[in-house]
Amino acid sequence: MSVYTKITREELSRWLHSYALGALVDFQGIAAGVENTNYFVTTTQGRYVLTLFERMNPGELPFYLNLMSHLARHGIPCPAPVADVRNELLGTLGGKPATIVTCLPGAPNMNPRERHCALVGRVLADMHLAGRSFPGTLNNPRGASWWRFAAKEVAPFLDGRRGELLQSELDYQLKRELADLPRGTVHADLFRDNVLFHGDAIGGVIDFYFAGIDCLLFDVAVTVNDWCVDRGGEIDPGRGRALLAAYADARPFTAEERDAWPGMLRAAALRFWLSRLYDFYLPRAGELTHAHDPEHFRRVLESRRLRALPLA
Amino acid sequence: MSVYTKITREELSRWLHSYALGALVDFQGIAAGVENTNYFVTTTQGRYVLTLFERMNPGELPFYLNLMSHLARHGIPCPAPVADVRNELLGTLGGKPATIVTCLPGAPNMNPRERHCALVGRVLADMHLAGRSFPGTLNNPRGASWWRFAAKEVAPFLDGRRGELLQSELDYQLKRELADLPRGTVHADLFRDNVLFHGDAIGGVIDFYFAGIDCLLFDVAVTVNDWCVDRGGEIDPGRGRALLAAYADARPFTAEERDAWPGMLRAAALRFWLSRLYDFYLPRAGELTHAHDPEHFRRVLESRRLRALPLA
Repeated sequence: MSVYTKITREELSRWLHSYALGALVDFQGIAAGVENTNYFVTTTQGRYVLTLFERMNPGELPFYLNLMSHLARHGIPCPAPVADVRNELLGTLGGKPATIVTCLPGAPNMNPRERHCALVGRVLADMHLAGRSFPGTLNNPRGASWWRFAAKEVAPFLDGRRGELLQSELDYQLKRELADLPRGTVHADLFRDNVLFHGDAIGGVIDFYFAGIDCLLFDVAVTVNDWCVDRGGEIDPGRGRALLAAYADARPFTAEERDAWPGMLRAAALRFWLSRLYDFYLPRAGELTHAHDPEHFRRVLESRRLRALPLA
Repeated sequence: MSVYTKITREELSRWLHSYALGALVDFQGIAAGVENTNYFVTTTQGRYVLTLFERMNPGELPFYLNLMSHLARHGIPCPAPVADVRNELLGTLGGKPATIVTCLPGAPNMNPRERHCALVGRVLADMHLAGRSFPGTLNNPRGASWWRFAAKEVAPFLDGRRGELLQSELDYQLKRELADLPRGTVHADLFRDNVLFHGDAIGGVIDFYFAGIDCLLFDVAVTVNDWCVDRGGEIDPGRGRALLAAYADARPFTAEERDAWPGMLRAAALRFWLSRLYDFYLPRAGELTHAHDPEHFRRVLESRRLRALPLA
């Protein structure tokens, strides 16, 4: 249960007076999610999601909200933060930084086929194209410096084989030369549970709170490592090709990206192996039940070290 | 039929490469409307409306597009112009200024009940609140100077009684003192055919191409004169009260607005009587079939000169 901050109908109704969203009809806490408190809010004008930010760095919130607003303005089906009458996307409610965003239709598809992977590849490329004119500058908070930090923290918990794998991969990754790769705003967490399908169309791309500036190819690798991978961590070539071809239709890959691709798939696997190890061995209070099994991304990493799917 | 400019699939597909809207699936000309060429455009990401501006002043287009974008950002259910990869809302297609906007659900309700009028009153107030932070400065193009111009043009066509009514009302209106009334961005054409209902909720407010800066109360009067008026031009008190009370819930009227209200209802009737006379007697080529009967707004004006509904 993630309603950390309870708000009353009166508080919410008063808060909505600063918005042009009609009158409050109903609201309801949302149990999913561990970082923030979320409510569904229905007004005479429609349905929205209210988020109270519980633990995020308040200095980083404008980056995420402005990015979502920018992408929505470009037609990306993502939650659009609603501006209040002062034209601000971020307010305060229940003593917490708060925002209210549009509610998108659909549900995650946990068993995607090639056609779903193609739509995901296309919307990822569209996000990268739309992001070109976004002026935000927050670096990917889960980039190389975080890998170094997290590796040191989790190393004491690993057995010999896993410890060696981690050190070997980290050494390889920290030596890679990435300066020639196109950079921009990346979602950096475009897993199956962060895309809503509405029938066979994408209803929404959600959860931008790991977004930042990084190599666009890193985002592609994160996405392929989830959407196009089986339970054993192996890439399904059909789904992989579908995702990459649809992406390249909108943004063709550069020669430098082709060269960097096998290493980038490994980097994307390392990043999630590390964060899952970290959440598993160093959980925050009350978070244990949400921790994913770190072993899946160890297998993904081992598989990517052996072979890579060619870039479309 | 209003597809003045034909575009090919290849042209449209190439044009969409500048947008982050997915791949073109289908497109189709829209017969309705007389000012612009419109197409429904379906992409892998959703459904949109493409507008090629045929006769509008290109210098005024940014005002309209930025206003719609601003209102959408504030949660008003209006068409949101989609920005291209250069972050521009206005492009060029088929040699015409062009924009692509989100497609809204619903259909006009030509027989509104009190509950529909309440929703319209609320969304109108919400547009006025959201418009407070909009920096655009285009004056209402159908304001007092246009009334003077149009009255001179149509006067030769009017019989004695109508000519005297027009002159008398114009004299009255041009002497009114409005400097104390709250001003802001007004839709200025919020008739029944410009609100889409999706079930009993408002799916969209459309057609912002008469918008401008004017007294907010003028917008309220235009809206009441259409939504709350019967065929004879008389105000239905129930619908009128429902609209005004819902508006005042979000933006209470000022004392100056209360004083100005009866005259403002007359001004709103005069504006549409004049434009309907103008379109009827001085039609542009090919426009005759679209002209509305000017007599309805003469009756509305005569009724408003006799009595006004009190402001909530």
